[in-house]
Amino acid sequence: MRTTVGIIGAGPAGLLLARLLHQAGIASVVLESRDRAYVERRQRAGILEQGTVDVLRAAGAGARMDREGLPHDGIELRFARRRHRVDFPALTGGRSVTVYAQTEVCKDLIALQLAEGGPLLFEAEALAVEGAGTESPRVRFRHEGREGRENVLECDYVVGCDGFWGVARTAVPREVSRVFERGYPYAWLGILADVPPSHDELVYARHDRGFALLSMRSPSVTRAYLQVPDGTDADDWADDEIWDELDRRLETDDPQWTLRRGPVTAKSVTPMRSYVHEPMRHGRLFLAGDAAHIVPPTGAKGLNLAVGDVVTLARALILLRDKGDPGALDAYSDTCLRRVWQAERFSYAMTTLLHRAPDATSFDDRIQLAGLDRLTTARSAETDLAEAYTGFPLDEQDRPQQDRP
Amino acid sequence: MRTTVGIIGAGPAGLLLARLLHQAGIASVVLESRDRAYVERRQRAGILEQGTVDVLRAAGAGARMDREGLPHDGIELRFARRRHRVDFPALTGGRSVTVYAQTEVCKDLIALQLAEGGPLLFEAEALAVEGAGTESPRVRFRHEGREGRENVLECDYVVGCDGFWGVARTAVPREVSRVFERGYPYAWLGILADVPPSHDELVYARHDRGFALLSMRSPSVTRAYLQVPDGTDADDWADDEIWDELDRRLETDDPQWTLRRGPVTAKSVTPMRSYVHEPMRHGRLFLAGDAAHIVPPTGAKGLNLAVGDVVTLARALILLRDKGDPGALDAYSDTCLRRVWQAERFSYAMTTLLHRAPDATSFDDRIQLAGLDRLTTARSAETDLAEAYTGFPLDEQDRPQQDRP
Repeated sequence: MRTTVGIIGAGPAGLLLARLLHQAGIASVVLESRDRAYVERRQRAGILEQGTVDVLRAAGAGARMDREGLPHDGIELRFARRRHRVDFPALTGGRSVTVYAQTEVCKDLIALQLAEGGPLLFEAEALAVEGAGTESPRVRFRHEGREGRENVLECDYVVGCDGFWGVARTAVPREVSRVFERGYPYAWLGILADVPPSHDELVYARHDRGFALLSMRSPSVTRAYLQVPDGTDADDWADDEIWDELDRRLETDDPQWTLRRGPVTAKSVTPMRSYVHEPMRHGRLFLAGDAAHIVPPTGAKGLNLAVGDVVTLARALILLRDKGDPGALDAYSDTCLRRVWQAERFSYAMTTLLHRAPDATSFDDRIQLAGLDRLTTARSAETDLAEAYTGFPLDEQDRPQQDRP
Repeated sequence: MRTTVGIIGAGPAGLLLARLLHQAGIASVVLESRDRAYVERRQRAGILEQGTVDVLRAAGAGARMDREGLPHDGIELRFARRRHRVDFPALTGGRSVTVYAQTEVCKDLIALQLAEGGPLLFEAEALAVEGAGTESPRVRFRHEGREGRENVLECDYVVGCDGFWGVARTAVPREVSRVFERGYPYAWLGILADVPPSHDELVYARHDRGFALLSMRSPSVTRAYLQVPDGTDADDWADDEIWDELDRRLETDDPQWTLRRGPVTAKSVTPMRSYVHEPMRHGRLFLAGDAAHIVPPTGAKGLNLAVGDVVTLARALILLRDKGDPGALDAYSDTCLRRVWQAERFSYAMTTLLHRAPDATSFDDRIQLAGLDRLTTARSAETDLAEAYTGFPLDEQDRPQQDRP
């Protein structure tokens, strides 16, 4: 089997890359180890930056997102019983975000790919990337649809979009790799509940008992999260206990506020991790999305970073084909990493601003509250937050004038 | 001995308070445990915020500062061999800072006090504050000038401006006190050197070997600091080693840069600490400056916070006398603490952004570099820094419109 770009992983990174390449007339094959039902079911992020929305629309994958996605012009910060709204468009010159679940993005891209695009093989498990340093890299894979026989996908380029646990990253030799990592002593207990969200925008709450986030999947489905100790089992929490704890952490002096409760339909624990692998390219192997970097979910950056990576990569491949210019492809890792580190910084800052570490001192608590006081009273600090939340530019050309050195 | 306001400590807080009260016709006595020569010699901070400069001028203590002080319209951030200037007036609507050593401020205020003000007793060591919870608080003190006899200063109000090690804070009962504290695993090795400063503004350098700060006392005297391990003895560093290390940490790709070396005239190690005591008032005892709070020196906030405290206190005492309104005096602790915690937050953030902790991981290093990248490319983040560096408002009335909730 032969193609121009071999893509490992049919998450949003791999699917969007295949779509962008198809639009440009560049052939690709996508290998996905799971079956279609699994991919279309897994719950992940749900906040699309302005830039991500624009990219999906341009890719022809925006129709259902535009119908069903919920444009959000702000978030609420809740702390010390206070409520403060961060107004994104007012602070950023019109930028905002859209609530539309990653799993829905994947469904839309899968449907498009199957209807118009190149091969997308489910239950095709990549076993190894070989020859990354040569002109003709290969992916060895096992395809359940073909009785588990081993196959080889020969490519001009291989892109690892196979997530943190994927095989692609292991093909970068250890001696040229650098890993940057940080763990957190807490995790997120997340629920889906069949009840309209209690507030029409996301609520990020800092509380002495720990962080809470009130979000939504749709106008009728609430998504909510509680900071819990790392290693927590979701089954240790009864539904009522979760609602009670959300109620405590979202406390406010505003008498208008009430938390709407409803039947919990899903419950899971997400660990928190910061991780970056450098470089994001080795020879003709490129890493994109979670295969190269992980952020804690607090800043809602994971999906958007993956989109940034594959947009940068698709543009670079198109530039090479059209003008014979390998500059952007050579710069792929550096271009992405600058944006990645900004997202890592922001995600780390939001996480440590809002979560209570088990060993937090009363000094740490006051520093958090002073940080929130500053964010909610100084326009400069609030603008800094709003710019980062609504998204860092996809590349230097997109960077607004005021942000240039 | 009897007075209206008994002031313990003739540092900048106590001296300025005495001056402000004298201008308003309110009697005070200042007790200082050291002799005049010592007070006029001790080296401390040297960066005056815009608001501090304005206050000293209004107090009639600005003449020499205006002649000899060096107005600075920016600082330089140096990292990853890059130089970046933060332009304060451009970012803050015209605010700037002035380099004028704390020891010179003290000399000017002492001269004024001795010429025009109330009693200022040197070698008068406060032993205890008594009756803070009553209508007639007292300071017991021992006066070397009077053969070490014990005396009592009877007051309407007592103000502890006697620094971190002073006696005033101990008069606040433990059961109403809360202490917030953080140590740092590093200190500053500081030098004074008889050589013109190598740059006309302060240079804050983040380097893998540790933080360095290049400052000045005057156009002919350099002040410089190196991050060193906590517990370092200044004598362990030869002068040449200090210059060599400054050279390494200030490295840049800019060929214009050279470090000017000269004879080192003083050398000392300053420990780093964050500390806040709440409340800053108990009955008729008020705490101001280092007696209530300590910041690490990175943000240059210590002296300016002390000025903020005594301005707030003087205004409150004047309001009470003129209008019989105790509101501002009752709010003293809350008013000051909001500004104090903003300064604590900023000092902590600047410190952790620029210093390398002994246990720093490569992830921590990248987060610092990403933070500096953000500060130096996003106007919002840079404005946030410039506003904090040039000074938080002295009270709500002074707060600029854009900063109000």
